[in-house]
Amino acid sequence: MGIREPLGELGCGLSHALEVMGERWSFLILRAAFNGLYHFEEFSEELGIARNILSNRLGKLVENGVLERTPCETDRRKVEYRLTEKGLGLLPAMLALRQWGETYSDTCNRDLVLVDCRDGQPVKQIGVRAHDDRELGWHELGWQMPDKIGTPVDRHSHAYTKEDA
Amino acid sequence: MGIREPLGELGCGLSHALEVMGERWSFLILRAAFNGLYHFEEFSEELGIARNILSNRLGKLVENGVLERTPCETDRRKVEYRLTEKGLGLLPAMLALRQWGETYSDTCNRDLVLVDCRDGQPVKQIGVRAHDDRELGWHELGWQMPDKIGTPVDRHSHAYTKEDA
Repeated sequence: MGIREPLGELGCGLSHALEVMGERWSFLILRAAFNGLYHFEEFSEELGIARNILSNRLGKLVENGVLERTPCETDRRKVEYRLTEKGLGLLPAMLALRQWGETYSDTCNRDLVLVDCRDGQPVKQIGVRAHDDRELGWHELGWQMPDKIGTPVDRHSHAYTKEDA
Repeated sequence: MGIREPLGELGCGLSHALEVMGERWSFLILRAAFNGLYHFEEFSEELGIARNILSNRLGKLVENGVLERTPCETDRRKVEYRLTEKGLGLLPAMLALRQWGETYSDTCNRDLVLVDCRDGQPVKQIGVRAHDDRELGWHELGWQMPDKIGTPVDRHSHAYTKEDA
């Protein structure tokens, strides 16, 4: 990547995502939510997570707008944790992490395959796409200033030394 | 998702990914590596990370095959940390996390845009794709048994209650 982004700078999207999700249990709770779990007791039993940690992580996910607390429709005394639109937006990141883990772990459970319900065909490996849908690798990517969008980036004009930063 | 995956089971790809990457600094070191940083001193200065934590995290990333230690070509006394193929494979997950953070953070720095070097056009939002490239949302996804690939999944036949598990 020709221009280097300021790395000390923690205002980037990745830092924000990691503040919200940068903890193992948060991702595993999110996985459970994507699998249709709603109740504290379900999360607790299915994940085998300590109740105080679960309570803390659910609170943090609600606070960050990833989950929302709503009364259960059939039993108003019960509370449900539902994915918000922001929470649903984490699906590509979670699947990309998961597919990477599946590719590189020998001990991975492959008893279930994630498919498109409509035709039962597995989803594709998640990748980076150009505006015209070409798949892009790392060596094809670069940083560009917002006012120079549309100007090609010469990736090889930079030697990635500290002086470039 | 009609069938629910076993959530207590930590052998899934996501768990493996989180064991390797489930820590905030690991992702930030990886971001720096994708930006072309190779040397301990560069990581230390640019990231502002304590040297003992940096050393620990670099070691773990090497141990897990995400980075490899190689002698510097121009100065054999120096060691470089280079992304392996396995490390490069984390690009979609990292970008998906980052794009999510950019979408939902108000304070996000947008001074640089990630583009396709060839034409300087921004990369697309990372999404989940069907085998024929259609974009899929959460409600269109389901789990299928490997021997039933190609059989549509009736998502609505399941009420996501604990009894389904």
